[in-house]
Amino acid sequence: MRAASRSVDLNLEGIRSGDRRALSRFLTLVENNRDAVAEELAELSPYADDRQIIGVTGPPGSGKSTLIAALTKLYREGGRTVAIVAVDPSSPFTGGALLGDRIRLKALAGDKGVFIRSMASRGSLGGLAWRTQDVVRVLAAAGFDTVIVETVGAGQTEVDIAGLSPTTIVVQAPGAGDDVQANKAGLLEIADILVVNKSDLPGAERAKNALKAMLDLGHPTKAKAGDKPIWVPPIVLTSAIEERGVKDLAECIASHFSYLQKHGLLVAFQATQLRAEFMYRLRETLQGRLFDTFTAEEFAGIITHMVQERIDPQCAVDQLLQKLEFRRRR
Amino acid sequence: MRAASRSVDLNLEGIRSGDRRALSRFLTLVENNRDAVAEELAELSPYADDRQIIGVTGPPGSGKSTLIAALTKLYREGGRTVAIVAVDPSSPFTGGALLGDRIRLKALAGDKGVFIRSMASRGSLGGLAWRTQDVVRVLAAAGFDTVIVETVGAGQTEVDIAGLSPTTIVVQAPGAGDDVQANKAGLLEIADILVVNKSDLPGAERAKNALKAMLDLGHPTKAKAGDKPIWVPPIVLTSAIEERGVKDLAECIASHFSYLQKHGLLVAFQATQLRAEFMYRLRETLQGRLFDTFTAEEFAGIITHMVQERIDPQCAVDQLLQKLEFRRRR
Repeated sequence: MRAASRSVDLNLEGIRSGDRRALSRFLTLVENNRDAVAEELAELSPYADDRQIIGVTGPPGSGKSTLIAALTKLYREGGRTVAIVAVDPSSPFTGGALLGDRIRLKALAGDKGVFIRSMASRGSLGGLAWRTQDVVRVLAAAGFDTVIVETVGAGQTEVDIAGLSPTTIVVQAPGAGDDVQANKAGLLEIADILVVNKSDLPGAERAKNALKAMLDLGHPTKAKAGDKPIWVPPIVLTSAIEERGVKDLAECIASHFSYLQKHGLLVAFQATQLRAEFMYRLRETLQGRLFDTFTAEEFAGIITHMVQERIDPQCAVDQLLQKLEFRRRR
Repeated sequence: MRAASRSVDLNLEGIRSGDRRALSRFLTLVENNRDAVAEELAELSPYADDRQIIGVTGPPGSGKSTLIAALTKLYREGGRTVAIVAVDPSSPFTGGALLGDRIRLKALAGDKGVFIRSMASRGSLGGLAWRTQDVVRVLAAAGFDTVIVETVGAGQTEVDIAGLSPTTIVVQAPGAGDDVQANKAGLLEIADILVVNKSDLPGAERAKNALKAMLDLGHPTKAKAGDKPIWVPPIVLTSAIEERGVKDLAECIASHFSYLQKHGLLVAFQATQLRAEFMYRLRETLQGRLFDTFTAEEFAGIITHMVQERIDPQCAVDQLLQKLEFRRRR
């Protein structure tokens, strides 16, 4: 009963046919109160198949958002619809941007074939990754041809999130000296495509050469390769603000997608990802059930007692779980 | 029954009175098969109170092991017993050392008041931290006055482990240029005491000044402080190989210990640590019970079905847990 009445409220058909308001409302529920829309998410899930999911990451100031805007414009000219998910709290997509950025993005926002959503980055690290995954899945099920996820590449969280997209683009701007910023943040290893953006600035060629030298050291290529067919991350020079190099980037994305499909890697990636999400949600759900079973006072009491009496923590855990009936239903 | 027969086998009294062979055998069981000795660990736990636990971390080549050896020698001269736990797989304590190191450590190994144990660093990140904690707890319960934990400071794991000791010493050697290696590895924030070891080498004063400048930036001090009384990490110059500066270091350790005790921070630290371990073990145990309840084939089947039918992972989790009786015992 619950599912039926909900479906009317939440207008799943509207979501699947591109009703932006229905989509926005649903995503808000997904982010804030997933349990309440669990059945609808389950219903949408099978439709999420076969969309192209692209992760774009890189240090602040590398011009990721402008690049995404330019790429989106290109995709729209080819007739493809695009959804953008911004996980970066400082992203222009979330509002805190320079005027020039905002104007460029506003042009996109008026386009019915583009949908922009920014994520609130509260909660646990793992939590954010999986909440983002929920949002991406809904957008894919809503029929967008391409979903682009923007993350800021400085911290474990973002690396995790980048791991959710089968194609990951690591963007950096020409820096001072030979420094490869992306390497510091551990981003090179996850890159399928490397972009030196702001190629109108001095030092772009040098940055490209530095990246190339790092790739030639073999580390990322080998790490990605294993027993799989080898993909050597191409390095693309772009100037997003001048819309130069964006077509080259789109071609690299397309050929990475073909490579994944040709070798069955897209299916393998999705399977790995679903498995990891299953294990994460299993642990969280079990823990949640346990918390529902005991009161907060009981928990506090157990912990205080453990600390005061110096009880071995595993022993305290076992004592707690003895109070629990935990077995297979017959 | 099980506990009684075990106690005889495992010779808990021997462990508590310093029987090294009994201790070694027990620690091997703790590391490899904790479940089998859970009751004995629980029995020892209350005796682990009030020992001094010191973490020593820093990049490879900073001379941590030599410093620990020198510190141990000093403590022994004062009549204190010392246990050393080496989590660093490249530590001389684990055998892979230069000849000079081995000779220095061998002198310690012949001393009945010193016990050296190296940890196998397999398994999960969190797992290693808590396995180390078990070993430390046993050594404390076995009556060693001081337990020193040596970790290599390059990676999340080691930072986690350093978080298990109320006093953390971060060691670095004078480097090329003004580079503060410890800062790169995120170690400055966890340091209670900073050591520039190998002070016989050129650049030691410069390294000290660089560390001082970083501390003055306020970050680590403020981060440590919060609403607690402020502890400003002292910077000690040592030359462990020449046994210089080691007494200064021992004085800093003693005054940090007094500071912790005076402000009730030692008790607070232990409580936080026990709480975190309780939550970790609760999650692991729940997951273990679940795995015991279903067969590996059932799990594999659920996951394959989920992947093939693109079932929402939370939905797959809920379906699995429906097969489970999960409630309070009456």
